Amino acid sequence: MNILIVYAHPEPTSFNGALRDLAIEVLSAQGHMVEISDLYRMNFNAVTGLGDFTGERSDSTRLSIAREQTHALETGTIAPDIAAEQAKISRADMLILQFPIWWFGMPAILKGWADRVFARGFAYLPGRKYDTGMFHGKLALVSATTGTSAETYAPDGIDGDILSVLWPVHNGLLRYTGFDVLPPYVAYMPGRLDQAGRAAQLDAYRERLLTIDTTPRLFFHPASDYAPNERLKPGVLARSGVQRNV
Amino acid sequence: MNILIVYAHPEPTSFNGALRDLAIEVLSAQGHMVEISDLYRMNFNAVTGLGDFTGERSDSTRLSIAREQTHALETGTIAPDIAAEQAKISRADMLILQFPIWWFGMPAILKGWADRVFARGFAYLPGRKYDTGMFHGKLALVSATTGTSAETYAPDGIDGDILSVLWPVHNGLLRYTGFDVLPPYVAYMPGRLDQAGRAAQLDAYRERLLTIDTTPRLFFHPASDYAPNERLKPGVLARSGVQRNV
Repeated sequence: MNILIVYAHPEPTSFNGALRDLAIEVLSAQGHMVEISDLYRMNFNAVTGLGDFTGERSDSTRLSIAREQTHALETGTIAPDIAAEQAKISRADMLILQFPIWWFGMPAILKGWADRVFARGFAYLPGRKYDTGMFHGKLALVSATTGTSAETYAPDGIDGDILSVLWPVHNGLLRYTGFDVLPPYVAYMPGRLDQAGRAAQLDAYRERLLTIDTTPRLFFHPASDYAPNERLKPGVLARSGVQRNV
Repeated sequence: MNILIVYAHPEPTSFNGALRDLAIEVLSAQGHMVEISDLYRMNFNAVTGLGDFTGERSDSTRLSIAREQTHALETGTIAPDIAAEQAKISRADMLILQFPIWWFGMPAILKGWADRVFARGFAYLPGRKYDTGMFHGKLALVSATTGTSAETYAPDGIDGDILSVLWPVHNGLLRYTGFDVLPPYVAYMPGRLDQAGRAAQLDAYRERLLTIDTTPRLFFHPASDYAPNERLKPGVLARSGVQRNV
């Protein structure tokens, strides 16, 4: 496979860096082609805005990011740094997002990568979302680190189930655009572990990377479970772990 | 009250801009002091990194954002743009986050505001989170717009309950740091509404702003509901709407 790792940590010797390096090593040894977007090293611009559009605007009086994204893609005038990332996604069979969970989500540099690169016209369009998403057939994996314990991210933990915390990424960014999504690999509090503890986390990640083919994907309800109003049809039991019947 | 509105939209004439302007008008008329952080206009730096620390670093060999944040706050060497936002929060009794929901979350410029401004040592410290959070006694409100319908954000909707989608903001950013949190005001798909529809949304927001005192806060489990491992004690029924008993 072609695999794109998008990596968002400012410190190369961080545990996130170790997870990234391990993924490169393990996946390359399996014969995969691995490409990296190291957002901090690239000094990636995190803020979508006028600079994303290099040509004549669709509407120069009032800025709609979605409209200008679509227009810029249609006219080949999207900013080069965005186009380069889009090309990486287009040639990737699998996407790995490698990041520390900051404030229950992606670091801003990675959120901005999503805001800018997952542009309307590239990542979604009317009628092209979820089961019919643009990235149908591609696979995605979140690999993240935390600053608090696995217990806090239990379903009855104070931070909430890790799958609820990551729902905006798993369902919102990845499934929305058509990806199949692997269960996340989460290294809990590597900063508090000794060398043996961190080695065990690396081993667990290695195992996850070696079993991509056989690991069941996260469950998301198929389009056929939804009524035209995009709510679960009567009688369909919510089983994503986040949604619930009302 | 002193009220800080942090506003994250690139287009001044957007519906987010209208909501911001309405809040300024309504809250000022009530005698509140309103301060604005217009992140796009400020060209706010969204990416935490070395530039956040203007003095000698705690560890110049390896960058830990949390450690350097703490050190910079202790030594008065945090970047001036961060210090200015922290001063605004310190004098605010209430915080309003005004933003469009992009990819199920805050725009990167606002996420970066959180990453940088809610620094360790200012927004949290060991033993200072949730009920004992640094911002205990302050109130917060998320006011957001969406690109999809209210139905999609129902508990059984394809996007997931809006309270699940906003959990990383409500619980992760705001409650974690001690805020009481009002139920969000969400304007669904203003871009698809006619003028009357948008006027109705503005009226609904006005009503919310006029009833801050009497609106029940979102429920979060108090510290006394949690065991030392930070999971709900046996027998405590999960009722945040996001967590669940296992």
